[in-house]
Amino acid sequence: MRTLPVGLTASSTVAASSANLGPGFDCLGLALSLYDEIVVETTESGLVVEVEGEGAGEVPLDSTHLVVRAIEHGLQTAGLAVPGLKVRCRNDIPHARGLGSSAAAVVGGLAAVNGLVGQVSSPPFSHSELIQLASEFEGHPDNASAAVLGGAVVSWSEHDPVLPRYSAIQLRLHPDIHLFPAIPQERSSTAATRGLLPETVRHVDARFNISRAALLVVALTERPDLLMEATEDVLHQSQRAPAMPRSAEFLELLRRYGIAAVLSGAGPTVIALTTAPELPVEALEYGAANGFTVSETAVGQGVRWTSGVAVAS
Amino acid sequence: MRTLPVGLTASSTVAASSANLGPGFDCLGLALSLYDEIVVETTESGLVVEVEGEGAGEVPLDSTHLVVRAIEHGLQTAGLAVPGLKVRCRNDIPHARGLGSSAAAVVGGLAAVNGLVGQVSSPPFSHSELIQLASEFEGHPDNASAAVLGGAVVSWSEHDPVLPRYSAIQLRLHPDIHLFPAIPQERSSTAATRGLLPETVRHVDARFNISRAALLVVALTERPDLLMEATEDVLHQSQRAPAMPRSAEFLELLRRYGIAAVLSGAGPTVIALTTAPELPVEALEYGAANGFTVSETAVGQGVRWTSGVAVAS
Repeated sequence: MRTLPVGLTASSTVAASSANLGPGFDCLGLALSLYDEIVVETTESGLVVEVEGEGAGEVPLDSTHLVVRAIEHGLQTAGLAVPGLKVRCRNDIPHARGLGSSAAAVVGGLAAVNGLVGQVSSPPFSHSELIQLASEFEGHPDNASAAVLGGAVVSWSEHDPVLPRYSAIQLRLHPDIHLFPAIPQERSSTAATRGLLPETVRHVDARFNISRAALLVVALTERPDLLMEATEDVLHQSQRAPAMPRSAEFLELLRRYGIAAVLSGAGPTVIALTTAPELPVEALEYGAANGFTVSETAVGQGVRWTSGVAVAS
Repeated sequence: MRTLPVGLTASSTVAASSANLGPGFDCLGLALSLYDEIVVETTESGLVVEVEGEGAGEVPLDSTHLVVRAIEHGLQTAGLAVPGLKVRCRNDIPHARGLGSSAAAVVGGLAAVNGLVGQVSSPPFSHSELIQLASEFEGHPDNASAAVLGGAVVSWSEHDPVLPRYSAIQLRLHPDIHLFPAIPQERSSTAATRGLLPETVRHVDARFNISRAALLVVALTERPDLLMEATEDVLHQSQRAPAMPRSAEFLELLRRYGIAAVLSGAGPTVIALTTAPELPVEALEYGAANGFTVSETAVGQGVRWTSGVAVAS
């Protein structure tokens, strides 16, 4: 165990993400250009956590803070310790909306460790290792992969019960695809909505989603004209609808207008993928009347880290 | 109903196909350069059917012959009739081995109608219509789509119980991928082996295949180094193994050597997809000792038809 010197500084920037994208349950992901920024500094002792933006005044400001836990986990994994730590988070990713804020916190924390260590030696974690560590730690490899790699991703895991292996590859998202997340005021819990999913599904329904997930890879990269067919799902969205009726209604409304809308992760955010430059006015009106913030959002970049940032006092 | 004149001639050539490719149950397909050829001629009356090669001496030589039924169906659909018909089939696609011989017969028969009609006016069926008609008629859209389009395909269907709609797109198969079908002597029935599949599956297993099917699209087109992970399946191959123990054993043996082997359709043919130029000698020895014919086979082309072929007497 090596102890890092006092006075190292680093930062990381990490994107929000939409998982599932309709049929690609637990495997497809898409980074969105809504970023959390983490600035860390090694100090002589203790722990100081500051949070601005999303989560401020709500998340704990101690060692149970998710970013801090991720940093500690990253340091331990790399065989490192710090005498003390100051962590400042500036969050733009809304919490509990299905936008991967937890995965972003963990990926951002681990990437900050890369930044800290990078000031004195090689960053310990490759992209693959960030995906593995963050997925192990947080449990959403689709979000974690999108946050690490940026863009659209396919992630997959090996079933090994001792050491599950998580992997992902990036897809080249077709440049004509516009992304419109519709973020509601209301919150949701992935754990709670996952409880709405059945243990078993019909073989024929599994096949349905298999065909759409395969098609969605093609639609996202080369054939955005097929996004409507490619985003059909029978395995989780309708099952979760009772927990988020307005999201379900908004999703249906968008699809009636030919806009490929899906739940973002476990919801309640809805995200529309379309080659149209804007959403139908009826959809915007519904969103405004029902507490959704709808705005075009660019695809997100992969996590970045820097070493030795200037730390404003 | 218009009756075509006597003396029109046409031919069609249609490829074998491997469906499923591991995780892509009922949706992924791959054409193989093993072709059936059909030559048709409108005659004054009656029906003559001749078959050479695979199926000769086994298939019926009357109006119940699958190619004849497909031709009749195509003519009817196009509002056409013939006074009489002579049909000659030269078959290289083995029957009942999971190589799409039935889908090929139907696609070839419909394409022959395109050829016949093409001698006097426009061929009635586009590629999309051939996929729709053949899938409706024969029930395997993955095989039918591969036979129509050639190459690797993603096919999907709309659940409408009145008029299911079948669609497909072609993938650009990566040129480094070599295909080694291993065709056993023994036969199998898709209907019988489908009976081995459970009505329901675990949600987690559905997700497993979803991730692998999405990944397989990437592996087939851009990342053949990922073929092993991308061809994993938990929804049908192990379930069918008891009906074809040697195929299951061969498949496992190939995979132990790092060769991405899968069942071709419902089996019993096994097909290996690999960037290696040849299979391990141990695999070839197992194949030879257990009645498999193993040989590298190029990817198949889409169905072709010609009008006005010279008919040898």
